Amino acid sequence: MLPLFQGMSRNDIENVVAHTRLGFSKHGKNKVVINEGKKCVNLCFLMQGEMEAVTNAYDGSYSIGETFGAPAMIQPECLFGLKQIYTKTFIATTECRMVYIGKNEVTKLMAEFDIFRINMLNILCTKVQRLSHMQWQKPPQDIRRKIFAFVEKRCQTAVGHKTMKIKMEVLAEQIGESRINVSSCLAALENEGLLKHSRATMDIPALERLNE
Amino acid sequence: MLPLFQGMSRNDIENVVAHTRLGFSKHGKNKVVINEGKKCVNLCFLMQGEMEAVTNAYDGSYSIGETFGAPAMIQPECLFGLKQIYTKTFIATTECRMVYIGKNEVTKLMAEFDIFRINMLNILCTKVQRLSHMQWQKPPQDIRRKIFAFVEKRCQTAVGHKTMKIKMEVLAEQIGESRINVSSCLAALENEGLLKHSRATMDIPALERLNE
Repeated sequence: MLPLFQGMSRNDIENVVAHTRLGFSKHGKNKVVINEGKKCVNLCFLMQGEMEAVTNAYDGSYSIGETFGAPAMIQPECLFGLKQIYTKTFIATTECRMVYIGKNEVTKLMAEFDIFRINMLNILCTKVQRLSHMQWQKPPQDIRRKIFAFVEKRCQTAVGHKTMKIKMEVLAEQIGESRINVSSCLAALENEGLLKHSRATMDIPALERLNE
Repeated sequence: MLPLFQGMSRNDIENVVAHTRLGFSKHGKNKVVINEGKKCVNLCFLMQGEMEAVTNAYDGSYSIGETFGAPAMIQPECLFGLKQIYTKTFIATTECRMVYIGKNEVTKLMAEFDIFRINMLNILCTKVQRLSHMQWQKPPQDIRRKIFAFVEKRCQTAVGHKTMKIKMEVLAEQIGESRINVSSCLAALENEGLLKHSRATMDIPALERLNE
C-alpha cells in the first residue's frame, strides 16, 4: 500500500476514490513519463511497473538514474514550496500505470482525512530529516565509501539499482581523489561484481553493497 | 508576520488565537530554551528576541551556531516524520518570548484553515527542495568557497551570523585541504574583517560575504 494511505480504513479509501477526481495513464517501456522542468500540478503515483528517475547535474557534467518500482509517489515535495517543478526525468523501464490527483484535490483530501494529512506531513518531514542528517555525517575517507556517499547524497534512497553517466575525471574531481585512484577503485568494484563500467557509464546493481 | 500565518485574514487569525490552546514562555539571556535530543511535541515560535541554534557533529568534533531573530518557527520538520526530536540546542542570546502550539492543535488548524495548511506544506517542501538542490551544486574549488559551502550546507540559512567551534585540522579534513592552506585562508578572511578566529572558535559576522 502507498505510505500516503497507510492506516486509512477500507471505508476511508473507498470514500477517497469515490469523491476524488483521479487521472490515469499508461506508458510503454522506454517512454518518458515526466520531463525534468515540467510544472508539478498533480500528485503522481506509480501504481504498476518500474521506472528510472534521472537527475542531471546543473553543469550537465553527469547524471544519476535511480530505478524504483510500484507503488511509489513521484516527488511529492514539488507540489508545494518555492519551485513547483519536477527536478528529475522519469522514464518507464517496463510498462507503467500511473494515477494522478490534482493539487486542489490533494489539499481537499488533507482537510478531510486526518490520516492522509498526517501521512503527507510524515513523508515530507522525514525527507527534510534525512537530507539534514546527511550533512552532518563524517565525510568518508576511503574511495569506495566516497563513491557510495556521492551517489547516496544525490538519490532518494541509499539502496537498489543506480546508474551514472559520468566521466572518470569528473567523478575524481567531485570526490576529491586522483583519476588513477578512482580508476583502480572502479576496477576493484567491477571485479567484485558491484559495478559495471563501460566508457562514461557506470551501472551499480545494488548501491548498498558499496557501503558494506 | 510569521510565514505560517501569511495570507490569513485578521479574522482568521483572531479565530486561531481564540480557538487554539497556546503556551507561552519567557527566557533570560544565555538560557537554554530547547535542548538537542528533546522530543518535539509542540510547534514553537520565537515571538520576540534573538536566539542561537547550535548543532553538534555526530562525532562531536565540531559544532555550528546560527543566530536568528523573531519572528521564527523552530524546526517544524521535527514535529512529524521518522525522528520527532530536536536536532539543535536553542539558546536565548537576548531575552526571548516564545509561543507554543501542541501537535494535536497543529493538525486541527491544518484541517480547518486552508491557508495554514498550504503555508505549512510550502515551508516543508521548500526545505526539501533547498536541501536536495544543494547536493547538485558544483563543489567549490577555492578554499574560501569551500569554507562557505561547509557552513552553508549545515545551516538553515546561508546568510547572517554563524559561529563554529572547530579545530583548524578538523576543518581542513572536512573540506579536503591542507592545514597550512586553511590557516592562511582564515588569516586572509580575518584581515578582511569577514571572520574572527581565536583558538578553536570562529566567528563569522555575515556568512554571505564569504561567497562574494
